[in-house]
This record gives sequence, C-alpha cells and structure tokens, in this order.
Amino acid sequence: MNLAKLTTSDFLEGIYANNVAIVSKAITIVESTKPEHRVLANEIIAGCISKKYDTIRIGITGVPGAGKSTFIEEFGGMLTDFGKKVAVLTVDPSSSRTKGSILGDKTRMENLVKNPNAYIRPSASSASLGGVTRKTRESIVILEAAGFNCILIETIGVGQSETAVHDMVDFFLLLKLAGAGDELQGIKRGIIEMADAIVITKADGDNMQRTDLAKMEFARALHMFPPKENGWTPEVLTCSALEKKGLNEIWELIDNYCKNMQTSGFFTTNRQQQNENWLIQYLEQELLSEFYHHPKTKEMLPQLKKEVISGNASPFLAAEKLLKALKEQ
Amino acid sequence: MNLAKLTTSDFLEGIYANNVAIVSKAITIVESTKPEHRVLANEIIAGCISKKYDTIRIGITGVPGAGKSTFIEEFGGMLTDFGKKVAVLTVDPSSSRTKGSILGDKTRMENLVKNPNAYIRPSASSASLGGVTRKTRESIVILEAAGFNCILIETIGVGQSETAVHDMVDFFLLLKLAGAGDELQGIKRGIIEMADAIVITKADGDNMQRTDLAKMEFARALHMFPPKENGWTPEVLTCSALEKKGLNEIWELIDNYCKNMQTSGFFTTNRQQQNENWLIQYLEQELLSEFYHHPKTKEMLPQLKKEVISGNASPFLAAEKLLKALKEQ
Repeated sequence: MNLAKLTTSDFLEGIYANNVAIVSKAITIVESTKPEHRVLANEIIAGCISKKYDTIRIGITGVPGAGKSTFIEEFGGMLTDFGKKVAVLTVDPSSSRTKGSILGDKTRMENLVKNPNAYIRPSASSASLGGVTRKTRESIVILEAAGFNCILIETIGVGQSETAVHDMVDFFLLLKLAGAGDELQGIKRGIIEMADAIVITKADGDNMQRTDLAKMEFARALHMFPPKENGWTPEVLTCSALEKKGLNEIWELIDNYCKNMQTSGFFTTNRQQQNENWLIQYLEQELLSEFYHHPKTKEMLPQLKKEVISGNASPFLAAEKLLKALKEQ
Repeated sequence: MNLAKLTTSDFLEGIYANNVAIVSKAITIVESTKPEHRVLANEIIAGCISKKYDTIRIGITGVPGAGKSTFIEEFGGMLTDFGKKVAVLTVDPSSSRTKGSILGDKTRMENLVKNPNAYIRPSASSASLGGVTRKTRESIVILEAAGFNCILIETIGVGQSETAVHDMVDFFLLLKLAGAGDELQGIKRGIIEMADAIVITKADGDNMQRTDLAKMEFARALHMFPPKENGWTPEVLTCSALEKKGLNEIWELIDNYCKNMQTSGFFTTNRQQQNENWLIQYLEQELLSEFYHHPKTKEMLPQLKKEVISGNASPFLAAEKLLKALKEQ
C-alpha cells in the first residue's frame, strides 16, 4: 500500500485493524502543520473518537535521571505479558530534548520497541505546549481506536507539561529517586499534590535503605495533604526496574484505583470533565492567541506593560485603554 | 463637607491627608457598579497609584474557626503599637457570608475597630471573584496613598479567593487550628504550598500539647516541598491571640522576610510581576467574558459541550466549528 495516497477510509480501516504502519502515518498527519493535512487529520479524529473501548491512560512524570525510561521499558513489558496492548507517548515541548529523545527513547527501551504488543511514539516536535498537548490528545484518540488499551504518557517534571499530562490521564504516577542528597531534586511545586501514587525507583542493592527511608518520609508528607475530591489517598511504593521488583504491586494499585473509580463513577465523570476542559481550553487559547497577534495589541501592549510594571499606571485603566482601542478598529 | 458632591481633587486631597471618611467614600465609589462612578473611580485610582510609600501587604487565610478575626484583632493592634497604620480588607466572594461578615468582623474586632490607627473594611458584595479582586486591588491603591503602611487581607481558605489574595500580597500567612481531629480541616489543596508561614493558632491552656505536635508535623511536611523560587523556606509558628503570645515572633518573621526580599530584589520584582499579572489577567478576563456573552456562543456552545462530554465529538473540532461561526458573523 502506498502510504502517501491513503484516503480517510483507508486510514480508518487500517487504524481499526491495528495496522501499526497506518497508525504511525495517521499520527504524523495529526502532527503536521500543513493545512491540507489538517483537513485529513480532522476526518481521521472524527472517525476514531466514537470508537469506545475500555482503556487506561497513565501519566508518568519525574525529573531526568529518575528512571522513567527504564521503568516504562519494564512496566510496559509486564503489561503486554498480561495481554494488554501498550502505547507509549512522550510529552516534552522543549525542542532541544525532543530532538535527542527520538533516538534516546527507542534505544533506552530496546525490548519494548521490539515487542509486537507495544508501540512507542516520541513527542511531536512542536515548540509550544498547546501544540504538543493537542497532538498528544489526538494521538491518544487514534491509538485507542486502534485497540491500544494501556496508554502510558511520559513527561519530564520541570515545566507546565506535567499539568497538561495530568489533565489527559486517568492515573498520575510520580517517579522519585531516593538518596540523591535530598528528596526534592528540583521537582516543580504542585506535582506532589497531583500524584495518585509516588514510586521510589532503583530500590535495589546498596540503595534499599535510602528508598525505604524516602518511602516513609513521602508517606508521612502525603498524609498532611487534604484528601482528593475522589476520595483516593495517594500511596508510596518502591520498585526496582533492574531486579523487576515492585512492578506488579504498582499495576495492582492502578488496577485497584480504576476499579474503585469505575464503581464510584469518578472514572467516567473525570474523562467527561477532561473532554469539556479540552474544548474550553482550546477555545480560550485560540481566542487569546488571536488577541495577542492583533496589530493594535502588538502596538500598544508593550508600552502599557512598562507603565504598569513601574507602578505609574493602574493595570485596570491600562487594560481598558487597550480594549477601547480594539473596539474602535 | 458634603461627601456626595466631592470632586476628584477633593477625593485625592482627602486621601492624601488620611481622612478616613473620604477614604471610605472613595472605596465605595470603586465598589460601585454605576458607570458614572466608574469614571470617578478611574480618576481617583490614577491619582493614587503614583504615590509611593514603603508598605507591606500581608495575606491571611484559614478555614472558618481557625481564628482569623481574633488573630487580626490582636496582631493588627500590636502593629499599631509599633507605630504602623493598619488597614484590614476581607476578600470573600461568597455573598451569603459577606452579608453576615460586615457586622461580624466589626464586632469580632471590637478593639481594632476603635483604634485610630486602624481601618477595617469588609469585602465588597460583588458576587464574582473577578469583581471582588479588582475592587480589593483598587482599595489597596487608595489605602496606601492614604498612608496605611500595613495592609492585612483576610480570606477564607476554601475557594479560589486565596489564590487571588496570594497574587496581591507580599507575604502569605496560613492560620491552622491544631487538635481538630486531624490536621487537614478541609483546607484546599495547594494552599500549603502558597504559604510563606504557617501559624498554629490557639496555642494556650490545654491545647499546648496539640499545637506543639501540629507544629512539628507541619514543619516536617514543609520540609518535603521544593524550595520557593525566592529562596525562602516557610516556617511554622504557634500563637495565642488570647494570651497575646507568639504575635511578636510572627511580625519578626515577616519583617525579616521583607528585609531579605528587599535585599535580594525579590520584593520589588514580585510587585512588578503582580502588576503585570493584573494587567494580563484583567485583559484576558474581559476578552473571554465578551466571548461567553456573544449570542453565537450562547447559541452553539451548550450543544457542542454535550457532544464533547459524551465523547461523540472531538473537542478540537467542536471548538473550530464555533470559532468559524463567530468569524462568519
């Protein structure tokens, strides 16, 4: 089949049949910035979105060096042993790392990349978080229509991307490395509160004592947080991807979470809420982008900002001046 | 003087002279929703904003019952003993409580209300957080131009209002009650991370052991957080407003914080950043409000939302449909 000449129904047929070459091509179309590809992408998404399977979307975050790739390699492999079809996406809007990570992820996950029940797709190379977010969300729609029922979404916990990933998953996992001097490792404020579970990685060999201590300290810290709205109390686990220890317990925890949330109805309402958020966020992002690209805004805003920052103009009056100028256009 | 017939320069003269009746009237003008008052309000703000004094803005949050009013009564009184001029504002967009709090705050702060160097102003009764936020920010501008150099801004820590208050202050204080069964007391997730200090209140009598334990537990929990960008490590203190214990230590901590942040330059850049944020937030809020009030949006959005929530339409395609319809108007 000539992949370059596929019609929308060729794409949909291929996706429904879990044809990985066509799935890949469809994601490339979604990632493309060419207008003619956008039309095709919209048709593909429209054809995929109504396919309903039971799937689980798991976000995985942690600073570089926390062992994300090694964890995903072993955890993803285990899930395929359980009969799951696993897709791995990465969200990372920082282009410099993206360029390296295509090769990097694939070599660091050398078993998973050869696994017939797994599919690994590195981050789209769009520079903006909004762009990457949209592409990732649309890729999830395609992958789920293709029958992948475990979607692992990896992100690096240093920017805004982990909030974006948190907003597109059912379960959010924070990987931490113990014994790196302190337990903080520059992780962004707020991430700990988003986590449904914290996993202390590299719990093997000499490191065992440190991981046990870190586990205790985090469990104590989590205890100080208010309960989540869904009633879930985040847990702290340890694992060794090297010795393949603790992975099964992590899956059991996630599976238990899903069963609980399906029973309570939160699983469904959370996804519905996420869908609505995507709509609203995208609308507002487009509206504001138009405003900031308006010639009048570009002309007036820098000077107004300067006056406001120096404390010589009221922020509200400055805003009203600009809004009035826009209306008089 | 007939307060009803004041001109802009009457207002400004009175404010500069710390005439409390005129300050009150000016805040009422700022809070008014009448268009003719808006013009006057804008002129007053423009005349006040360029007045530059050294002031400190302190946000104080905590759940109902945490002892905010009693704390502010004693803490504010102490600050006037130190020669400060203290103004107290409350931010509370929930109208039901607002209606009660005008009387409530004044009777609960019976000494402060009679103190010639203190000024207490309960929340504006606007229903929207955006409205209350603007009015509070403009009230701060007026109060500082009138020579109040300690602005205490009280908020109830259960909604979005504490984030709004955090964005308008130099120092953010979280009051907690120990021994209320658990340490969580329904406080909103994320507030602990915003606090520059946590104060365990009612550290007196039988309660001492519980407050000491709570202090230790919070200090341990705070230790698990990543450091703040300004390098400040939040501290946990205890106080008894009843026995007037610990209040001096809290002021010393805040004063020490201010001196540190003035030396590092963070104090100034933080206020500049807040000014810029106010401009941007207000602009975006006005633009989005216009969008949501547009007849086309009102006509199309509910149905699009329904399709998106049920998973039968892509959020992105739904958004594009609405944006296109707006452009074709």
